[in-house]
Amino acid sequence: MSEIVARLGGKVLGDSETEIFQVATLEKAAPGNIAFLANAKYRKQLADSRASAVIVAESDAGLTGLPRIVAPNPYSYFAKLSALLNPLPAMPPGIHPTAVIDAGAVIAPDAHIGAHVSIGAAACIGAGTVVMAGCVIGERTSVGTQCLLYPNVTIYHDCVIGHQVILHAGVVIGADGFGIAMDEGRWLKIPQIGRVVIGDQVEIGANTTVDRGALDDTVIEEGVKLDNQIQVAHNVRIGAHTAIAGCVGIAGSATIGKYCRIGGSAGILGHLQIADNVEIASFTLIGKSITEAGSYAGVYPFSKNDEWRNNAVHLRHLGELVKRVRAMEKEIELLKGEKI
Amino acid sequence: MSEIVARLGGKVLGDSETEIFQVATLEKAAPGNIAFLANAKYRKQLADSRASAVIVAESDAGLTGLPRIVAPNPYSYFAKLSALLNPLPAMPPGIHPTAVIDAGAVIAPDAHIGAHVSIGAAACIGAGTVVMAGCVIGERTSVGTQCLLYPNVTIYHDCVIGHQVILHAGVVIGADGFGIAMDEGRWLKIPQIGRVVIGDQVEIGANTTVDRGALDDTVIEEGVKLDNQIQVAHNVRIGAHTAIAGCVGIAGSATIGKYCRIGGSAGILGHLQIADNVEIASFTLIGKSITEAGSYAGVYPFSKNDEWRNNAVHLRHLGELVKRVRAMEKEIELLKGEKI
Amino acid sequence: MSEIVARLGGKVLGDSETEIFQVATLEKAAPGNIAFLANAKYRKQLADSRASAVIVAESDAGLTGLPRIVAPNPYSYFAKLSALLNPLPAMPPGIHPTAVIDAGAVIAPDAHIGAHVSIGAAACIGAGTVVMAGCVIGERTSVGTQCLLYPNVTIYHDCVIGHQVILHAGVVIGADGFGIAMDEGRWLKIPQIGRVVIGDQVEIGANTTVDRGALDDTVIEEGVKLDNQIQVAHNVRIGAHTAIAGCVGIAGSATIGKYCRIGGSAGILGHLQIADNVEIASFTLIGKSITEAGSYAGVYPFSKNDEWRNNAVHLRHLGELVKRVRAMEKEIELLKGEKI
Repeated sequence: MSEIVARLGGKVLGDSETEIFQVATLEKAAPGNIAFLANAKYRKQLADSRASAVIVAESDAGLTGLPRIVAPNPYSYFAKLSALLNPLPAMPPGIHPTAVIDAGAVIAPDAHIGAHVSIGAAACIGAGTVVMAGCVIGERTSVGTQCLLYPNVTIYHDCVIGHQVILHAGVVIGADGFGIAMDEGRWLKIPQIGRVVIGDQVEIGANTTVDRGALDDTVIEEGVKLDNQIQVAHNVRIGAHTAIAGCVGIAGSATIGKYCRIGGSAGILGHLQIADNVEIASFTLIGKSITEAGSYAGVYPFSKNDEWRNNAVHLRHLGELVKRVRAMEKEIELLKGEKI
Repeated sequence: MSEIVARLGGKVLGDSETEIFQVATLEKAAPGNIAFLANAKYRKQLADSRASAVIVAESDAGLTGLPRIVAPNPYSYFAKLSALLNPLPAMPPGIHPTAVIDAGAVIAPDAHIGAHVSIGAAACIGAGTVVMAGCVIGERTSVGTQCLLYPNVTIYHDCVIGHQVILHAGVVIGADGFGIAMDEGRWLKIPQIGRVVIGDQVEIGANTTVDRGALDDTVIEEGVKLDNQIQVAHNVRIGAHTAIAGCVGIAGSATIGKYCRIGGSAGILGHLQIADNVEIASFTLIGKSITEAGSYAGVYPFSKNDEWRNNAVHLRHLGELVKRVRAMEKEIELLKGEKI
Repeated sequence: MSEIVARLGGKVLGDSETEIFQVATLEKAAPGNIAFLANAKYRKQLADSRASAVIVAESDAGLTGLPRIVAPNPYSYFAKLSALLNPLPAMPPGIHPTAVIDAGAVIAPDAHIGAHVSIGAAACIGAGTVVMAGCVIGERTSVGTQCLLYPNVTIYHDCVIGHQVILHAGVVIGADGFGIAMDEGRWLKIPQIGRVVIGDQVEIGANTTVDRGALDDTVIEEGVKLDNQIQVAHNVRIGAHTAIAGCVGIAGSATIGKYCRIGGSAGILGHLQIADNVEIASFTLIGKSITEAGSYAGVYPFSKNDEWRNNAVHLRHLGELVKRVRAMEKEIELLKGEKI
């Protein structure tokens, strides 16, 4: 533990020579593990934990006799310690013989290019970047340094991926946006000639799709974190350090601010603007722009099916109900008036 | 038909030597086909069907003069008969020369490994398992016996897949869970060091994603059936024989019971517990734990756009409306009191 | 510009020798670009635009002194012009040496088959079709002429894809529908022996999935446009020229008419029928058949989280509230009666 605080800061209370091999939850920790207490509701678990040590805030330092590291933000301390104890396996530099690399592509000598990868003409792969098996990277696309592309990622032509970007398996970057125009009973395709531009330290979850711009670019700023199965339409801009949970759909040309947090399966309609620091609840459709930071929601509360049915049926007459209430209020005023 | 009942049970009424080549719906059946009647609303189609035979329940055996198989559950009888008549094509054992198999991987001699597959170090593929073209299987992952992996499936490192598991194209198992901690204006990544563990006879639909656990494992118990495009977050546990329709999102650390049935595009928030035998309607967000079996729903009823608009606008003032009703009730009580 | 109208029609006002190299938005246009005005709310941008020319409707022709093309539908004119200025790069005919093509497959001599593609026995690829890297095409599947399959598309066996079809990366066509029957505590799989049949000029977005039919076929008629991450279940039929936005889920055996427009993340329950020319708002669940053209919606309106909570809580008692209102109406009638 003394070695840990030497590298990550904080201070040790208790035996600072305790040996730590891995992080764990309070509940599942075994000897040699260090757990963390970041949420008051897990205090009960602290007493029963088999962890050899724990990371706590100053205010919780007295709750346990275990060897402990005291740090202002135990959860982020835990994140850093876990990264220290669980480094990614080093991938050997070089290009797998089954990869198909266009003669005009530029691959950094220490990049790792896995089996059955295809890389198009004039594409560029930066130093230390890992491209796993089955990825396909289009012509003139640039991938920065120290990126990690998991298997079967597809990036279309002419896109720009920053540094230290992580793309999980099945991600598709740069597919055509949904641009169509009705012409004499048929949809004409609008060529999608913009790009996707992704900033540094962005992480994108499995099977998420980010479409290329119609004319201008789709932009994901630095530090954005996207979960799995999200759909980002053409010409969307997502501000720096915004985090979006799984299955969210963002329609074309929406602009989302910085440091927003969007819950799972939420949606944002096209051409809207969302301010910085907006929090959107899961399953909420944002149907007009939000100009003020804060938390927003719009979810139908669930109940037993019968109860739901008995209540929901009246939603189709809510306007009428409001009119009936207004009418009664007038009647009552009249009745009260007659009294006097 | 006598051969069929000899293998699958049930009894034949009518000509038991009728020859059957394929299953079909009552509506589309041609001579040589056998149809089934499992739902009273299709009784009308029975009279007009060109099927050579039909599977019926005892109670419906008198509805037709066609040769028929009488069985307690015609739909499951049909399922078994269809499986008998439509066996999967046998895939030849062996490893395609374009596959890239780490020297330390263990592949059963009768497994089929398709073109352009990649299998990592110390991975293990069981007897009779088929891995189709373009699949990527990570280091130390174990896939059981008689599994069927359709093309372009990705399984990350250290996962455990049971026996007779079917994974459809584009499935991603074991991508990192969405674990991030805010630290001085930036998101730190929480290393995801748990696994995904999938039980026997699980089937997972196309492009569904199941994330690995943060510290402990994500677990899908035996017999679970997942449709397409589902997102299962880290540390979720799905109980045995639960069936989940397409596009559902299940947030981190949710625990779902056995024999649950979840409708399409529903959602379950993180850390909730859902009891066994719970049925959740399509499009319903479950926002707190469910401790009792039964059917649950929470869906906004649709209507013509104008009507919807006229009604929905009042939802933003529903609390106020309830207060107005309460106030009127008091007024009326007063008015009635004055009468006496 | 004279050359453009010679090819696409319309008439030029202003200097018809103005040279145009690319299309752009009014806002971002640079010299050499042509922009378009299709929506009155962008009129303000017209004055400030650096575009060299603009496409306008007759009624807007007087709004600018820029060289302009006057056309009845400026947006579809723009679509055609953009296609003219941005042709797809020609892909060289031939089969990449890393592709694995079954000896019994038939590949048109001028088709382009990319790296690491797999094509099964008796499959057929039409003239001028491009199959990009990593695609997998099953046995006996037929892909028409002039199709474009982006990387890592999977098409299962026995499917039929029309002419000039575009499938974006990660699309899965023909995976098994979600057909299961409960039998003594276990789900039996219903073999899915139908096909997927896709008409001409269909475009399907990244990671969208279209399941094969259980017994009969799943059908997508000509000119249908599907965005990303849509789930189309078994035995669905989508009528010609219908357009569906991202993340929509369509349950089994639903039939959707022609020229429908369905917003993002909407849903349609199984076995329903939707008439032609129906428009469905984003996030709306269609829970019963729609027999009449028109616009339909059912979305919970969002608000600040606190307000939402204060209002939504009453939804669980809406039926009761309606009863209270009815009771009061009677009381008021009584009170009024007593007056007389």
